[in-house]
Amino acid sequence: MSSTAQLRALNIDNINPHVRSAQYAVRGELAIRSEEYRVKLQKTQPPTPPDESLPFDSVISANIGNPQQLDQKPITFFRQVASLVEYPPLLEKEDVLINHLGYKPDVIERARRLLAGVKSVGAYSQSHGAPIIRQSVARFIEERDGYPADFNNVYLSAGASSGVNTLMHIICASPETGVLVPIPQYPLYTATLSVLNARCVPYYLEENKHWGTDLASIRTAYEKAKSEGTEVRAIVVINPGNPTGASLSEADMRSLVDFAAQEKLVLLADEVYQTNVFVGAFHSFKKVLRDMQKANPGKYDNLELASLHSISKGMVGECGHRGGYFELVGFDKQVQEQIYKFISIQLCPPVVGQCMVDCMVNPPKPGEPSHELYKQEYDGIFNGLEKRATALYDAFKQMEGVHCENPQGAMYLFPTITLPKRAVEQAHKEGRSPDEFYCLRMLDATGVCVVPGSGFGQKEGTLHFRTTFLAPGTDWVSRITEFHKKFMNEFRD
Amino acid sequence: MSSTAQLRALNIDNINPHVRSAQYAVRGELAIRSEEYRVKLQKTQPPTPPDESLPFDSVISANIGNPQQLDQKPITFFRQVASLVEYPPLLEKEDVLINHLGYKPDVIERARRLLAGVKSVGAYSQSHGAPIIRQSVARFIEERDGYPADFNNVYLSAGASSGVNTLMHIICASPETGVLVPIPQYPLYTATLSVLNARCVPYYLEENKHWGTDLASIRTAYEKAKSEGTEVRAIVVINPGNPTGASLSEADMRSLVDFAAQEKLVLLADEVYQTNVFVGAFHSFKKVLRDMQKANPGKYDNLELASLHSISKGMVGECGHRGGYFELVGFDKQVQEQIYKFISIQLCPPVVGQCMVDCMVNPPKPGEPSHELYKQEYDGIFNGLEKRATALYDAFKQMEGVHCENPQGAMYLFPTITLPKRAVEQAHKEGRSPDEFYCLRMLDATGVCVVPGSGFGQKEGTLHFRTTFLAPGTDWVSRITEFHKKFMNEFRD
Repeated sequence: MSSTAQLRALNIDNINPHVRSAQYAVRGELAIRSEEYRVKLQKTQPPTPPDESLPFDSVISANIGNPQQLDQKPITFFRQVASLVEYPPLLEKEDVLINHLGYKPDVIERARRLLAGVKSVGAYSQSHGAPIIRQSVARFIEERDGYPADFNNVYLSAGASSGVNTLMHIICASPETGVLVPIPQYPLYTATLSVLNARCVPYYLEENKHWGTDLASIRTAYEKAKSEGTEVRAIVVINPGNPTGASLSEADMRSLVDFAAQEKLVLLADEVYQTNVFVGAFHSFKKVLRDMQKANPGKYDNLELASLHSISKGMVGECGHRGGYFELVGFDKQVQEQIYKFISIQLCPPVVGQCMVDCMVNPPKPGEPSHELYKQEYDGIFNGLEKRATALYDAFKQMEGVHCENPQGAMYLFPTITLPKRAVEQAHKEGRSPDEFYCLRMLDATGVCVVPGSGFGQKEGTLHFRTTFLAPGTDWVSRITEFHKKFMNEFRD
Repeated sequence: MSSTAQLRALNIDNINPHVRSAQYAVRGELAIRSEEYRVKLQKTQPPTPPDESLPFDSVISANIGNPQQLDQKPITFFRQVASLVEYPPLLEKEDVLINHLGYKPDVIERARRLLAGVKSVGAYSQSHGAPIIRQSVARFIEERDGYPADFNNVYLSAGASSGVNTLMHIICASPETGVLVPIPQYPLYTATLSVLNARCVPYYLEENKHWGTDLASIRTAYEKAKSEGTEVRAIVVINPGNPTGASLSEADMRSLVDFAAQEKLVLLADEVYQTNVFVGAFHSFKKVLRDMQKANPGKYDNLELASLHSISKGMVGECGHRGGYFELVGFDKQVQEQIYKFISIQLCPPVVGQCMVDCMVNPPKPGEPSHELYKQEYDGIFNGLEKRATALYDAFKQMEGVHCENPQGAMYLFPTITLPKRAVEQAHKEGRSPDEFYCLRMLDATGVCVVPGSGFGQKEGTLHFRTTFLAPGTDWVSRITEFHKKFMNEFRD
């Protein structure tokens, strides 16, 4: 504690202990250090000579799924629409837009429609989002799943993180409330549970089954928690997986629905990577649930499903706009009223982000003027991601002591690493977990920032790291392989 | 409870009780009913004949400070910059922008500068905001106050509400934590304390002293709370006031600083209405504190001040963009690290909103190409607000049993109403507080939606309502006066 801490109202020992205990490694020590390196490198741009103290000339932020920081270009249609809703007087110059600036009529039409619905992107909307955009989302869900969706059950949010925060606030009623969370997981879940002083009930994903779920181990975790007095109320499923990148099989999903219905658990489906699927097809939990309801009338009618989506991921990658939504299925009306009240305290999600949600769920269709460019950009991003994922995967296959599942989706690979005993000892000497030690060494040597597996949780005795495959080029992949070789040689037993 | 509630994981009786107990009247029952009326009126636009069941033809949302929903035009400079950062390829067509679309060179320059700093508005920024924009904020504070500001102590946020939420999360450590909150207050404070299961320690503002603070009554509230086992840690001050519209005198502010320093309380200064001042000048708490520190070396060095600002209010009115910031003064470094970690869980504030913050704190200067229009728009909004405030105030002066302080600032008037005994009895019969009863009657009769004083807190035995003075025209003011006349006649003893 600093020497003046006692003189103040707040110090590290008396602030909210639940905030203090929360961990969020994605933006933790490594990320902060990587930012320091970035600043150092920027400061030493010519005319000042390059900083000789750093053995690399650029920082690669592979720690966070932030596509547009890594040169992914925004989709033109989305941003043209955004420019018009931001400055509506442009709509009075249709000829200039079309003849001089290359805007297509469907861009102009979309902006007009959105402005008719929101009036101004500078005005607060309803707390769960503008009706016109919630209606677009409902239509998208209907088309995706082949089942009806009611826009009154759609809640727009400032990214999926904000939606998770809302739902967890409602669910967590006491320090005994527990939520089943997959391990490894995106640390938003554990951090939020920590802040809410509720219990994380971990269930492990099966690395040797392509990071799928295993119902027996979920049930064991559930029963153990119950026997310890935890009131388990919800189960989180991230599909496609973060950090694992894996897609769940329909069979796994059906087991999960069945389990949640049987044990009266809210099924919280984080489906933000639903378009980032390289292997097989994405199945939404809503569709799987509706199929099961159809086949078993009455049996699953009361299952509460919350499905989350986001504009930050997919080919959209509009993280900075903070947009997303969740759909509630089977929730009690009075509970939904409390959800509305809770979100109203923070007024509304950013309205331009809401407009981006509209573009995501209702992009230009075949035959419409902007479709060709949209498709070209979309496919280009998709193929680029797949290509880089494969390049990275191929590199991992060559690395000693590294094993990685083949890339299936999302934006991540999550290889296992087996480190020499001496490296593990050195890590412990420095008061770090071995994977953290490895990742810090990698950052210091290469400028590549990845996140240690311990930031997401991993089975006792295993080590991993998560890397995005967003960074352009392949230079940084070879930085990793060279570092790894040197690291292994340095600590070889 | 609905009949199926027991079949689900979540029902009204088992969700988070702290969320359930939170109250947020600004978007409560009245607001929801007014939205229903709005939908009803929209549905009955021609060719369908007007809905004869409603005695008004439009809904006036005077319940919430949402300028652009009520026809306040956005400031051109802000939105032109936003259009360019949304669609940067426009910057390659400088001649079209300037010659065909009326953009000025300083708009283009600002967009370029911002993009150089944030790279893409679709990329996550640092969790406390892009450095380039935090630096702008720091310079603005320096110029406003005449004292240095460090951009490392500036945290951009998704509106001031999000900043308050962050700070309250850090401050509230246990159910015994208490925060002094002015009554009447903006209900964000009580709602947030409720969700956090901490204690609101109310102190009353003095209506007969232009809603100023009274240190004796603050001290009484503080001592009473302490004697009841409350660990009071912070004091909220809203200046200019919401819902009162009042500006604090410098003497009041000095007393508050002195009191907070003496009792080791965080001073949480909600200064979002700092440019909405009609009477006198705005003084920031930062300046008052620095003046006092200069005059009394050492005495106030450890006071923790958090000052909040927003793009939603002032002449900017960009509520839907969700932008704001808070500056921390005198906070412990380790505590600031925890604040950073907490906000990083939600990744970052909307980046376009951050760009709007930049425009707000660094608007076109005299001599710059966009300045003339900016000043004209700014002054137009300011004068319009003052004019409407005065018109409303004049109307209130004529109304039986209504007393109102003269408009000083913010966006609100908060008149006292004295209702006939029979109206109070009728309200109680309907299970409502008398001011809520009055406001509901007003909405049903006129379509004008205001918020009952009970939504903000008021001294026992007094009744008020809060109205914004944002709605254009004066028709709605006469709707209120006519309604009031009829209401008083209906319930006259």
